[in-house]
Amino acid sequence: MEKQKQTEISELGEFGLINHLTKDFPLRNPQTRTGIGDDAAVLSFGDKEVLVTTDLLLEGIHFDVRYVPLKHLGYKAAVVNFSDIYAMNGIPRQITVSLGLSSRFTVENIEQIYEGIRLACEMYGVDLVGGDTSASASGLIISVTCLGEASKEEIVYRNGAKETDLICVSGDLGSAYMGLQLLERENQVAASAGKDFIPNFSGKEYILERQLKPEARKDIIYELRKAGIRPTSMMDISDGLSSELLHICHSSDVGCRVYEDRIPIDYQTAVMAEELNMNLVTAAMNGGEDYELLFTVPLTDREKVERIKEITMIGYVTKPSLGAALVTRDGGEIPIRAQGWNAFPTSSDLVGARNPEMESSSELESEIKEKENQ
Amino acid sequence: MEKQKQTEISELGEFGLINHLTKDFPLRNPQTRTGIGDDAAVLSFGDKEVLVTTDLLLEGIHFDVRYVPLKHLGYKAAVVNFSDIYAMNGIPRQITVSLGLSSRFTVENIEQIYEGIRLACEMYGVDLVGGDTSASASGLIISVTCLGEASKEEIVYRNGAKETDLICVSGDLGSAYMGLQLLERENQVAASAGKDFIPNFSGKEYILERQLKPEARKDIIYELRKAGIRPTSMMDISDGLSSELLHICHSSDVGCRVYEDRIPIDYQTAVMAEELNMNLVTAAMNGGEDYELLFTVPLTDREKVERIKEITMIGYVTKPSLGAALVTRDGGEIPIRAQGWNAFPTSSDLVGARNPEMESSSELESEIKEKENQ
Repeated sequence: MEKQKQTEISELGEFGLINHLTKDFPLRNPQTRTGIGDDAAVLSFGDKEVLVTTDLLLEGIHFDVRYVPLKHLGYKAAVVNFSDIYAMNGIPRQITVSLGLSSRFTVENIEQIYEGIRLACEMYGVDLVGGDTSASASGLIISVTCLGEASKEEIVYRNGAKETDLICVSGDLGSAYMGLQLLERENQVAASAGKDFIPNFSGKEYILERQLKPEARKDIIYELRKAGIRPTSMMDISDGLSSELLHICHSSDVGCRVYEDRIPIDYQTAVMAEELNMNLVTAAMNGGEDYELLFTVPLTDREKVERIKEITMIGYVTKPSLGAALVTRDGGEIPIRAQGWNAFPTSSDLVGARNPEMESSSELESEIKEKENQ
Repeated sequence: MEKQKQTEISELGEFGLINHLTKDFPLRNPQTRTGIGDDAAVLSFGDKEVLVTTDLLLEGIHFDVRYVPLKHLGYKAAVVNFSDIYAMNGIPRQITVSLGLSSRFTVENIEQIYEGIRLACEMYGVDLVGGDTSASASGLIISVTCLGEASKEEIVYRNGAKETDLICVSGDLGSAYMGLQLLERENQVAASAGKDFIPNFSGKEYILERQLKPEARKDIIYELRKAGIRPTSMMDISDGLSSELLHICHSSDVGCRVYEDRIPIDYQTAVMAEELNMNLVTAAMNGGEDYELLFTVPLTDREKVERIKEITMIGYVTKPSLGAALVTRDGGEIPIRAQGWNAFPTSSDLVGARNPEMESSSELESEIKEKENQ
């Protein structure tokens, strides 16, 4: 490698890096409608538009095989890609799966991964159409690409949110993150307790399932269509609500107000946060991996949205000059900051699964406390 | 992981493993025309068909950054996917690129990879439309997915070869493999000679370029169209001529005869084989990474094919009962065996780049010698 200025990746961060690297790539083909910058690319080959999304899952970064069953891993690898297609208001149709496998994996191990992928394909009506399988020098690598379709009129981008639109989320938030905390805690206890330790997950099944076997919100997409609602903007919550809200605000050139007391949180998530002495709102705002849908609808659709189960209105879209803020229970406002999961942590310890930037989360936490104590 | 029978992946081999894993995946969507089993999947979303192919490149398995410049690596990662689309008689249109990067890679390193990708996209008129970038626990991971298009009538599969068809290849074979041997030899010499060693690649530029910066045969696809030739079957030569001939014979249910003295080999390839005391035909038949096109045309197209530069007729298609065989210079016949690159070598030494099964190659070599000495 030549001697020249060398910049650590963490200086730019994941999104900064992607922007930096892809700025010199023009789009040449009329069949390419939208490239980088949304949940999926939009291509046009005929009367329907084709959506493409891809995800790379790496052992030691995105998952830990010590506590993630391989079947669940296969299921999740497929479903998180389906979620990206739904987030465009499209229907996933095909996936390709590439696996890199170190020598410690056996055929039976890989069968389990494929069994999970097969189940996900069955549940969501998707076809496995290709892939690549190779030895890897170390660890397990899963690369999934998903294609979906939608008519031109159906596709929902991140950039359509308008002032006064209502901000909605499906399901509840923070549960997948709390499931991960639980798995990591039990794994640590197991390591010190030795062979006889049996983890107790009783009463925590929901948060575990949210972490290990997440679902994509196909049901919400169908409910919205049935109700005649076309969101003005939409994305799935993979990096955390804060991060995704900022993506929508940035792409749509708007601001937002989201109410702390409207954020949907499950009972088990709350109990687990209490047990671990963690701030609940922080987990819900920045936890990530929820794979719920975040979307905006015109104010006039309020009643229609209210009639759909599992959708919560959490706030509204403002003009851009007001910025993005969380409104606390006492009416104070805290600016929402980009946090999410950091794909390039500055510290070198990548033990366990994904490594959130908890410094900034604690910052939000103390700001919330401060506001609440005023 | 549960206790049950555990099977080493090498027992099944790459193709056996893929067949084994994907046999339970039905195709559910009418938009999916063809799934696994060709150079690319064929999907149908409108008047044009969409082609999808994906490749996973792993450090320590597929490349060695000690002697592969990162820019070349990016270029090659893109081009090998374009080659798969051309091999279906399609035109590549879009790619997604996912990178896994260990902490030793800097922003400048990744810029070089993207510079290579950008150049490939420019040369072949392809749009970068998405991807994923993440830290990796170790090594560099490149996963590329390419989409292309073709009309239904244009697409050429592996399964259309008919008895008496002519077998053709573009360019020459074995040169990329000899380039790799040269790089590995110089790398070993450099390791023992220390810092002051300057490798001498003079007179070997062509084989080096074939290994480091391969091209996809876009030109041949255009020439064939211009001449009004539609191949009856086609694939690209990534794993070696022997392996690809058997794929076409198997998919088309035919046999073949390929003439040793018709296999196109470049002068530099021959010189390098001589230097390294390796069998030239073995390198050409099993070397891999040539990214030339192997295709069959009806006998009636013979004159049209002869007029196209850089296409060589190497043999003809027979009825299946005759099997696949190489006809040696003296008129003897040696059965062609599946060899190619083994993605799951049985030995654990994965030093350097791809690890061909040279045992079986030496078998071919000794068989050829035997025939020649008769």
